[in-house]
Amino acid sequence: MASETSRRPAFAKWLGDTNDVTQIFLSAGQIPGLINMAGGLPDPQTWPIKAMSDLAAKAVQDHPTDALAYAPIEGLPALRDLIAARFSAPGLLLSRENVLITSGGMQGLDLIGKVLLEEGSLIAAQTPAYLGALDAWRPRRPSYRPMRLDANDFAPETALHGTQFAYTVPNFSNPTGRLVPLADRQALVAAAQATGTWLIEDDPYGTLYYDSAPLARMLTLAATGGAYDGPVIYLGTLSKELAPGFRVGWVIAAPEMIQALVMAKQGSDMSTSGIGQRITLDAFASGLTDSILPNILNLYRDRRDALCAAMRTHLADLFDWQTPEGGMFVWATARNPALNTDHLLRAALANGTCITPSSVFDPTGQNRRAIRINFTFNPPEKLTEGIRRLATATRACLAEAA
Amino acid sequence: MASETSRRPAFAKWLGDTNDVTQIFLSAGQIPGLINMAGGLPDPQTWPIKAMSDLAAKAVQDHPTDALAYAPIEGLPALRDLIAARFSAPGLLLSRENVLITSGGMQGLDLIGKVLLEEGSLIAAQTPAYLGALDAWRPRRPSYRPMRLDANDFAPETALHGTQFAYTVPNFSNPTGRLVPLADRQALVAAAQATGTWLIEDDPYGTLYYDSAPLARMLTLAATGGAYDGPVIYLGTLSKELAPGFRVGWVIAAPEMIQALVMAKQGSDMSTSGIGQRITLDAFASGLTDSILPNILNLYRDRRDALCAAMRTHLADLFDWQTPEGGMFVWATARNPALNTDHLLRAALANGTCITPSSVFDPTGQNRRAIRINFTFNPPEKLTEGIRRLATATRACLAEAA
Repeated sequence: MASETSRRPAFAKWLGDTNDVTQIFLSAGQIPGLINMAGGLPDPQTWPIKAMSDLAAKAVQDHPTDALAYAPIEGLPALRDLIAARFSAPGLLLSRENVLITSGGMQGLDLIGKVLLEEGSLIAAQTPAYLGALDAWRPRRPSYRPMRLDANDFAPETALHGTQFAYTVPNFSNPTGRLVPLADRQALVAAAQATGTWLIEDDPYGTLYYDSAPLARMLTLAATGGAYDGPVIYLGTLSKELAPGFRVGWVIAAPEMIQALVMAKQGSDMSTSGIGQRITLDAFASGLTDSILPNILNLYRDRRDALCAAMRTHLADLFDWQTPEGGMFVWATARNPALNTDHLLRAALANGTCITPSSVFDPTGQNRRAIRINFTFNPPEKLTEGIRRLATATRACLAEAA
Repeated sequence: MASETSRRPAFAKWLGDTNDVTQIFLSAGQIPGLINMAGGLPDPQTWPIKAMSDLAAKAVQDHPTDALAYAPIEGLPALRDLIAARFSAPGLLLSRENVLITSGGMQGLDLIGKVLLEEGSLIAAQTPAYLGALDAWRPRRPSYRPMRLDANDFAPETALHGTQFAYTVPNFSNPTGRLVPLADRQALVAAAQATGTWLIEDDPYGTLYYDSAPLARMLTLAATGGAYDGPVIYLGTLSKELAPGFRVGWVIAAPEMIQALVMAKQGSDMSTSGIGQRITLDAFASGLTDSILPNILNLYRDRRDALCAAMRTHLADLFDWQTPEGGMFVWATARNPALNTDHLLRAALANGTCITPSSVFDPTGQNRRAIRINFTFNPPEKLTEGIRRLATATRACLAEAA
């Protein structure tokens, strides 16, 4: 058998471009007592289990065709209509033709890669960029033009020119937690309209505003009063509004883009889970998602505050950061450029905690100076202890580098 | 806006390689009274709705973390263990490391394409080939070497040599309904072992044997007694054993292949629906799937017999076919080479019925002489009427061609 397996065909080249951070995280699951601040997970206590159990039973019993048959590739018509209505706004007319239901928000990224990228195609990406987007597009082997939206000399038209699309997470970016201001949103939409390129608005955290009212979506800013045909491709997900386990997300875009994505989805997984779609429809229509949001916001706001308080106590001399106004993450940059945060991850694990190093959010893998810290999954006392351990690990790591 | 949309970036090239049959089928849904024999759908009356509704409620209530959280990329450990045990056989030792849970059987094909295909990579494909596999791999732009397994001069080693993988549906192939005999299975496995290439055994119809006991899987034939590390990549699905709407399938393969597929799945949809996986686990473990199988077999056997009887009455002078011993389809080849079955599809729609033309199952799109007829979705009387209409359409089509 050794000779057979050694003669096997080569794997696709992109598989050689991944890093080993995921493997490190997986083995981290084995460490007893670990305080994991690396993920991007909701707290299960936010889930209305009894209500969802009832919805699941009703989905099968009352709507067996919706729940049990192959759904249309595009998604259940009633769910597409509901999403269209939910995201319509004055001047923004959305209909079923603007909506594709996906198997989680991640699948929207995969499908966009399939329909818009050839090897070497150029993406303008808000950087640091969401790791999952880099993962989704890696099999297409694109090139990246980093966009630093907060740089003083950022020029949107120049950034978007000649790209297949621009990728942004305007609401509390993963990993930086940054909120893109309204003026910058307007400038990005204007640049997309001027250059003709597509503009992705990936919005998993759009409901998680802790301190203020939500800013206008770029999707809304791109409206021109008629049936929507604009350059913004909006990605939403149920994962943060209700629960991730149903794997339901949605893409809102111009009809020609939806049609192309449908071709890609047909060959990817045929259709999204019918039972998941039916539960989503009923959870939105019954007001369940809206009813649990205040509790989610209170819980996560308290945790953000606890995390940032602990950081001020234990990390003030080691890192710089800004308190995010929403989302799930704090982004912290080492004050000492000698700190390599890939090494810090290993030191943190040795000290019983876990964060995500910046290298995985950089398309070039170069950024080794920052970390992403999640605050939604752990209660305040665990976050405080996690930060204490992280401070110990950081000092150990700096001592080793010196 | 017209100028903006006309300047949009080009879509990926593969989108130009698709045909318009899907569009024709979609518009066919609007025709009142249409007898649709084109699809590959199970009959909803086979679904144990009350039992599945109870399983759905229990999945959320009793196993909220399994059902509602992000599942591990690889799938729920307990479900991977169950699949490993269910497909193990004397000499075939499977464990969790051999199993990946997918979002339906289709996703297995997509993931295999992602990890094994570069543009121009060679696939040896049992031809006519499953349309969904061609759809799944189109974004990778592979080349095809057709395999006619029933040809007298078929030489497996020559066929597999130099390919990334060979693709087969040994049990009641979609579209031909053909059962690959045991000797041919053994020869394919031996050729895969000799050449070192991968051998895909796509098996959605493996439980649908109407006349005899199932033949040994190629997966089993590739066993060598130790922990499985063979060349066969086996694809299974819940869609035909219970219902498609949960979108749960599985890949069984050598651990190195599973690990590569996990990397691809991470960037495709992160994980398969937790509620779907939990329902699948409980449906298998409780014996529900096994308990409904005899009813499914009786229902579909009667329909196959009704279809073939109607074909003998109405189509004997127009088509040649063989009665399939299982699966969902009869494949019929026109006796008159002047019949173009792309045209026949349009004529059939005009006469109130619908079949699938052979062109969509040919990687080169050349085969215009055969049709695929589904017998699982419609009751006997509808199948009989559908075949009567198809005969009328065929005569009209031939008269026009003459």
